[in-house]
Amino acid sequence: MKAEIITIGDEILIGQIVDTNSAWMAVELNQLGIQVAQITTITDTFDHLVKALNEAKERANVVLITGGLGPTKDDRTKNVLAEYFNSKLINHQDTLDHVIKFFGRRGMATSQVNKDQALVPECCQVLFNSVGTAPGMWFEKDETIFVSMPGVPFEMKELMKSAVLPRLANLSGRGSIVHKTILTTGVGESALAEMIEKWEDALPEYIHLAYLPNIGSVRLRMSAFGNDEFLLHKEVDAQVEKLKALVPDAIFGYGEETLAGVVGELLLNKNASMASAESCTGGHIAHSITSVPGSSVWYKGSIVAYANETKQNLLKVNKESLKEFGAVSEQVVRQMAEGVLKVMNVDYSVATSGIAGPDGGTEDKPVGTVWVAVSSKSTTIAKRYNFSNLRERNIVRSSQTALNMLRLLLLNE
Amino acid sequence: MKAEIITIGDEILIGQIVDTNSAWMAVELNQLGIQVAQITTITDTFDHLVKALNEAKERANVVLITGGLGPTKDDRTKNVLAEYFNSKLINHQDTLDHVIKFFGRRGMATSQVNKDQALVPECCQVLFNSVGTAPGMWFEKDETIFVSMPGVPFEMKELMKSAVLPRLANLSGRGSIVHKTILTTGVGESALAEMIEKWEDALPEYIHLAYLPNIGSVRLRMSAFGNDEFLLHKEVDAQVEKLKALVPDAIFGYGEETLAGVVGELLLNKNASMASAESCTGGHIAHSITSVPGSSVWYKGSIVAYANETKQNLLKVNKESLKEFGAVSEQVVRQMAEGVLKVMNVDYSVATSGIAGPDGGTEDKPVGTVWVAVSSKSTTIAKRYNFSNLRERNIVRSSQTALNMLRLLLLNE
Repeated sequence: MKAEIITIGDEILIGQIVDTNSAWMAVELNQLGIQVAQITTITDTFDHLVKALNEAKERANVVLITGGLGPTKDDRTKNVLAEYFNSKLINHQDTLDHVIKFFGRRGMATSQVNKDQALVPECCQVLFNSVGTAPGMWFEKDETIFVSMPGVPFEMKELMKSAVLPRLANLSGRGSIVHKTILTTGVGESALAEMIEKWEDALPEYIHLAYLPNIGSVRLRMSAFGNDEFLLHKEVDAQVEKLKALVPDAIFGYGEETLAGVVGELLLNKNASMASAESCTGGHIAHSITSVPGSSVWYKGSIVAYANETKQNLLKVNKESLKEFGAVSEQVVRQMAEGVLKVMNVDYSVATSGIAGPDGGTEDKPVGTVWVAVSSKSTTIAKRYNFSNLRERNIVRSSQTALNMLRLLLLNE
Repeated sequence: MKAEIITIGDEILIGQIVDTNSAWMAVELNQLGIQVAQITTITDTFDHLVKALNEAKERANVVLITGGLGPTKDDRTKNVLAEYFNSKLINHQDTLDHVIKFFGRRGMATSQVNKDQALVPECCQVLFNSVGTAPGMWFEKDETIFVSMPGVPFEMKELMKSAVLPRLANLSGRGSIVHKTILTTGVGESALAEMIEKWEDALPEYIHLAYLPNIGSVRLRMSAFGNDEFLLHKEVDAQVEKLKALVPDAIFGYGEETLAGVVGELLLNKNASMASAESCTGGHIAHSITSVPGSSVWYKGSIVAYANETKQNLLKVNKESLKEFGAVSEQVVRQMAEGVLKVMNVDYSVATSGIAGPDGGTEDKPVGTVWVAVSSKSTTIAKRYNFSNLRERNIVRSSQTALNMLRLLLLNE
């Protein structure tokens, strides 16, 4: 079973808002085993909508339409739908009663444009909108289902959950899709692809693999299609086990997990604490960690030492080392990691010092040169990396790298 | 002149990522006077892409395509484009050199799949991608321009800015649109709307106003349409002056400026320095500041004091104050701001202490309670705020608020 989403709205076409509705709908449809074949954003004109409806009908069994149902004159969707389905607009009494009550509860009179919200094409089934005034509308034509909903996200979601998704779930003939997302870091997309090439080539035909690269990480998404959800889960899990054997260090988690959250779990298991000393990451490590709810249990804090003076005074970095080797050096980053371990009285620490850019690069140490160190009470490991020439990217990659080095230290100790 | 955007990517169709690329591209195209007629997200299959290209060609002069250019096997866009334009894939030597250098700088060998990134349809003009390995490709067919770019947001943006937008701007036949974005903070969207209602109602018909709310700030975007760009700029600037008189404190900047960048400018003018002491913001203030290139001149660093112990040891917060008033209190946040001022030896400081959530709230201090302080050598100001029950939102709002309090202190001193 296939679906398409049509979004009507100039505010998306001029970039004023990002279309988050479609992503939400796609997730919900996938969970019912309904694949989304296309998402289309169009202007609210007769010709454009009719063309989009006709094209969608060719490819999909279900067409979900959002937007264009507001009370103002620039919203014409309802009229277009009436004409498209050769129907006329009639008053829907239950909706009118609801609209009047809706405004009454807010101490407001119901104007004519609001009353007109109760006009619907005669041929549709009305879907009650408990949180707004524009009702949902369900049409069936030539074996295709069309559903029109308001574009306001919480109204659309409420209608989907209360009316649309239950009806779609009831329709027969739906397949199952099982998704599993494997999170990796420390290996680039193409290197990863080579390492797992044979495994990928040997995947059964009904399992698709997608590479989703982010800054400093690559997510691998497996999607298995079939009829028996239990068997699909079993096969996907078996494939994940094979993958883990190929790239054991690269995989740090699954689904919605984060690297900082995973490091936190490892620390919690050891009843241990950590802190950070940040130069080039400038607080990004601290922010990644403190975005994890409950991180205050295992994270004591960070010293963001942007000035050399701060590195000396707060992290006890040797003045001579700074002078001799520079702030971006193995010597200094090791001292930063060891310094914050003592100053914050923690079991583990990470430290970064690098040239984020755009300025500050030299021939020896071009922009993107970053030293990262991790430290425990018994050892300190430091590595040099050469990232890119983009400041924000260097910050995020350095931060990810520091957390990953700590993750590997915690795992391999 | 009309454009369409075609996005290729299963990850959008299954709802794993939200399509933010299209909104960004739409804004940029609008600024050149190019309207976006449709945005289409499709799967990476031959038939689907060819159909989408044909349909877009009917409606638009420019078709921008993103995604499907990765080195892995699930990316087929380039092959489809070659066939669509009746061309064959050839090696592009400049791109190959760049790819080899790209991996070489990272100390990595270039694999065959990476070398294949340099294969492009013979008929296209190659657009150099300085920040990635997949080049942009510019095609012209039957009076329509097609541009293919990688889907990774920062690569797409870099290609758009360096190559695509300048070329499109040179094309004739465009009308003028003048945009100006005014950045405000400290006043909510509806309060702001009431304060500027009369001004908004009196705007000339050819100037549109849009409210773009973000966490902790509202951007006001004015768009003026007409033929004489000079006159449009003049009128927009005159309207901005009127607006400034209505809400002088709320406006902190324009366009792409950031609050941290504006604070930095004010500090530079005074030849002054700053530092931060962060509890609930957990490094977000430091990260906002250090995202500004060159901030190391005026920013010495941050002490992220997540543990009370760290507040005592590093920020010299009184143990008794912590015990008597709790970490989230006026007394403690003042001592944090004054402490970091001394410890880091700076002229100004900000400090935050609050309950970001989801746990940790009490009846007196529910989740969202945040104390913010700013300090100079002569004064310390502390304020209590009640934000939301969402962790990430509380972190960002607290961070914005701290920077804004410092901005106002610097302005009004």
